[in-house]
Amino acid sequence: MTVSEEGAARKISRRRLIAGAVAAGAAAAVPSAARADGAAQSSSTDVVVVGAGFAGLTAARKLRRSGRSVVVLEARDRVGGRVWNHDLGGGTVTERGGTFAGPTQDRVLALARELGVGKFNTYDKGDNVYVADGARTTYSDTGISGTAPPDPLILGQLATVVGELDAMAKTVPVDAPWKAANAAKWDGMTLESFLDSHNPTKRFTDLVAASTRPIFGAEPRELSLLFVLFYIAASGDEKHPGTFERNFDTRGGAQMWRFVGGSQKIALRMADQLGPRVLLGSPVRRIVQGREGVTVHTDRATFHGKQVIVAVPPALAGRIEYDPILPFDRDQLTQRYGQGTLTKVTAVYDRPFWRDVGLTGSALDLSGPVNFTYDDSPPGGKPGIVFGFVGGDKARAYNRSSQSRRRAAVLEQFATYFGARARKPRAYYETSWAGEQWTRGCPVGIPSTGTLVAYGAQLRAPVGRIHWAGTETSTFWNGYMDGAVRSGERVAAEVIARL
Amino acid sequence: MTVSEEGAARKISRRRLIAGAVAAGAAAAVPSAARADGAAQSSSTDVVVVGAGFAGLTAARKLRRSGRSVVVLEARDRVGGRVWNHDLGGGTVTERGGTFAGPTQDRVLALARELGVGKFNTYDKGDNVYVADGARTTYSDTGISGTAPPDPLILGQLATVVGELDAMAKTVPVDAPWKAANAAKWDGMTLESFLDSHNPTKRFTDLVAASTRPIFGAEPRELSLLFVLFYIAASGDEKHPGTFERNFDTRGGAQMWRFVGGSQKIALRMADQLGPRVLLGSPVRRIVQGREGVTVHTDRATFHGKQVIVAVPPALAGRIEYDPILPFDRDQLTQRYGQGTLTKVTAVYDRPFWRDVGLTGSALDLSGPVNFTYDDSPPGGKPGIVFGFVGGDKARAYNRSSQSRRRAAVLEQFATYFGARARKPRAYYETSWAGEQWTRGCPVGIPSTGTLVAYGAQLRAPVGRIHWAGTETSTFWNGYMDGAVRSGERVAAEVIARL
Repeated sequence: MTVSEEGAARKISRRRLIAGAVAAGAAAAVPSAARADGAAQSSSTDVVVVGAGFAGLTAARKLRRSGRSVVVLEARDRVGGRVWNHDLGGGTVTERGGTFAGPTQDRVLALARELGVGKFNTYDKGDNVYVADGARTTYSDTGISGTAPPDPLILGQLATVVGELDAMAKTVPVDAPWKAANAAKWDGMTLESFLDSHNPTKRFTDLVAASTRPIFGAEPRELSLLFVLFYIAASGDEKHPGTFERNFDTRGGAQMWRFVGGSQKIALRMADQLGPRVLLGSPVRRIVQGREGVTVHTDRATFHGKQVIVAVPPALAGRIEYDPILPFDRDQLTQRYGQGTLTKVTAVYDRPFWRDVGLTGSALDLSGPVNFTYDDSPPGGKPGIVFGFVGGDKARAYNRSSQSRRRAAVLEQFATYFGARARKPRAYYETSWAGEQWTRGCPVGIPSTGTLVAYGAQLRAPVGRIHWAGTETSTFWNGYMDGAVRSGERVAAEVIARL
Repeated sequence: MTVSEEGAARKISRRRLIAGAVAAGAAAAVPSAARADGAAQSSSTDVVVVGAGFAGLTAARKLRRSGRSVVVLEARDRVGGRVWNHDLGGGTVTERGGTFAGPTQDRVLALARELGVGKFNTYDKGDNVYVADGARTTYSDTGISGTAPPDPLILGQLATVVGELDAMAKTVPVDAPWKAANAAKWDGMTLESFLDSHNPTKRFTDLVAASTRPIFGAEPRELSLLFVLFYIAASGDEKHPGTFERNFDTRGGAQMWRFVGGSQKIALRMADQLGPRVLLGSPVRRIVQGREGVTVHTDRATFHGKQVIVAVPPALAGRIEYDPILPFDRDQLTQRYGQGTLTKVTAVYDRPFWRDVGLTGSALDLSGPVNFTYDDSPPGGKPGIVFGFVGGDKARAYNRSSQSRRRAAVLEQFATYFGARARKPRAYYETSWAGEQWTRGCPVGIPSTGTLVAYGAQLRAPVGRIHWAGTETSTFWNGYMDGAVRSGERVAAEVIARL
């Protein structure tokens, strides 16, 4: 399917979703709309799903396939959660949120295949740019230093530290990181403390922060070492051990592929299949469990089910009211699992001019606001799009700056990487995920030190008829689209066993 | 005033509060009740206060005194927040929550005086009990080791580490800990990492955890070193520098005094003065800011004001919906500021029999579930009451145990300290603060590593017409009743300047 065909398909799916939203918009209209469909009627809905991100939609789809009735309640006026296409007009879209997939992310890849959403290689021909202490160099990520820049000031420490992290991660069980032999010790220290124990150079410290900002939306001081090790361990699958490099790399790593028509197309297609069972504009306020079932309240309507799946990040799940209240452990988990801090900035040009001079569009910059860029152009390379990650402290400083200064600072960086033409994009846009009411931070929830040991077991433990999904609950590719899909599959099986 | 007079006064105040609650209970009744009073009517209320703990009530009272109209919306069916009297009948009460006050806690002491609530010394005649590795000893806290147990296995490290902490705390500005010269470094490590750098013995590590559990409701691995240093610095006043010992000690420290009739009496008297302006059973769901003012929604009623004061812990403030949504920084702060984990267990006996054998009732036990106890008997010593703090990992394990095992484990500890009679209390009760819907953890909110540096400035920064109070916002005695009172005074002045 071509990109323009995709644009048309997307428009159709939007119309259908808006119809759902309108139905949800008027309390009186909901029951009749639901009744007509036969799925969302209170008395006959098996499962109420909260959140139409990749996790919630995957779960709802699996439940439908096994013959169960579902309704999916989504706060936003769109589906996809942290995955959101930006429409550039003319059938061209790029992503404001989750973009990439890579080897061993088999569940999201299988889902895309099943839904007819194609994938293509992230543009990677040529050299990457590397900027450290104001000095710009270029390097090939197939060179002697692997995918890291061949900077003699970092390579030694990088090899040592990444080697240690990868080895330590092998001792962390992905389904219960709190059971690792050193769990309490590692959950009692930050990644920064671990680095400090290696007497790092400033440049190496800068490099680590430049990688944790895109990967976690956080500074090394905000990250529990145990969580980082778990995250590394989870970046594989049942057969392939996770490594730090898998998180970081394009070729062979988590940034290897992109989806034709934008990653949100996967969510839009799932929503299309679910039809009016997906209700937009319906933030869930309250979940009441009784002997016979569970009742889910939005501002305008009430939905009854036998079981409920809450497929939103822990921090947002904690903002729903529960009756009876959630147990002590589960509630405290949600108080200690803040969303990362990540802003994505994107510049659109007539064409990807950096390719002309042999650049991939990827830049690693130890300063900021942007620490990492990728070529985000559609398959045909028209228009040319580059996006950058602004995370952690850089995202906070960026947020406090004026809109014009923000733009100027980013474009100045882009000009350093790709030349003066980068200063004059056709369009510039930014997505501050911490400012998004129904996500409140990206790419993933981050437990504070001590939290995995104290409350990690509550991430997936059902509370009566309430089941938890979302990428934060995944044992593989936690924090990625693949983890969200896996969590949806896991929770659907969990719920089906109880119906 | 005698204790029995106090009982009567408390009953009167309870009746008045229940009247308020009933008014709030029926939507139709609220406006007329409010109109009769002239305070809570939408169009004439200057300030809406969310939360009737010490902070909210103090603020409301100050506002009233300066001639402003207020309404205080409280989710519970009582006032006091984390301060809650337990009625033992016959005019006797003890505290389920905040109990003590000490030197330099001048604002809560002044408030108590003004309200005619007397104070008396925490019982401290005789020796304390100390249990380490199963060995029980007794010691005088006026002895050569100061208030610490004279355990040769800990004293050296204790002196070094506490000396260092106190010295480092002196460099932390209480109104902006993130501006300390070493702020980023200290916020990037846990208290545990700091301890580890001193090669601590297991016994010393146990001692530190036994003190952080009651003081913070947390393990050393959960605590940012910068937050611990701030907390120490804040345990003084404008003239007296804070020290670790002030937090820990009874005589001369934060546990020196108790309040006649129970600490909640201070809140009950404030509520008495505010009368029907305090509405119980009214959890706030939504705060809407407009050009002309602010509207606060409960399930049953709507309150308009010129300004609003949110006087609940950050973690609970984050669960209210705001329109427009809160800025990025403020919201992320509330995602990273979980409430501590503390359970208070209490045994009631006919009389404080431990006093007969020269014991204060205070025990420091490095095992658990209880790590610290206090004599909690009323001034006359009849009945005899002892309470224990179960915090951090101990509180989590305790919570997962059965009720009968919990009770048996605690009473067995009490028997070790005070003799076999402790096994047969007249009554035993426990208060799991993490299980309390409208507090969700005690004694205080705890920022994760990196949070003070990233978002600390948002603790008190107003957002339009919304002002923040609560002990977590206080620059002195943060986490204590005194800090709550100070925050109420500060926020009232802040709001008056805008009216």
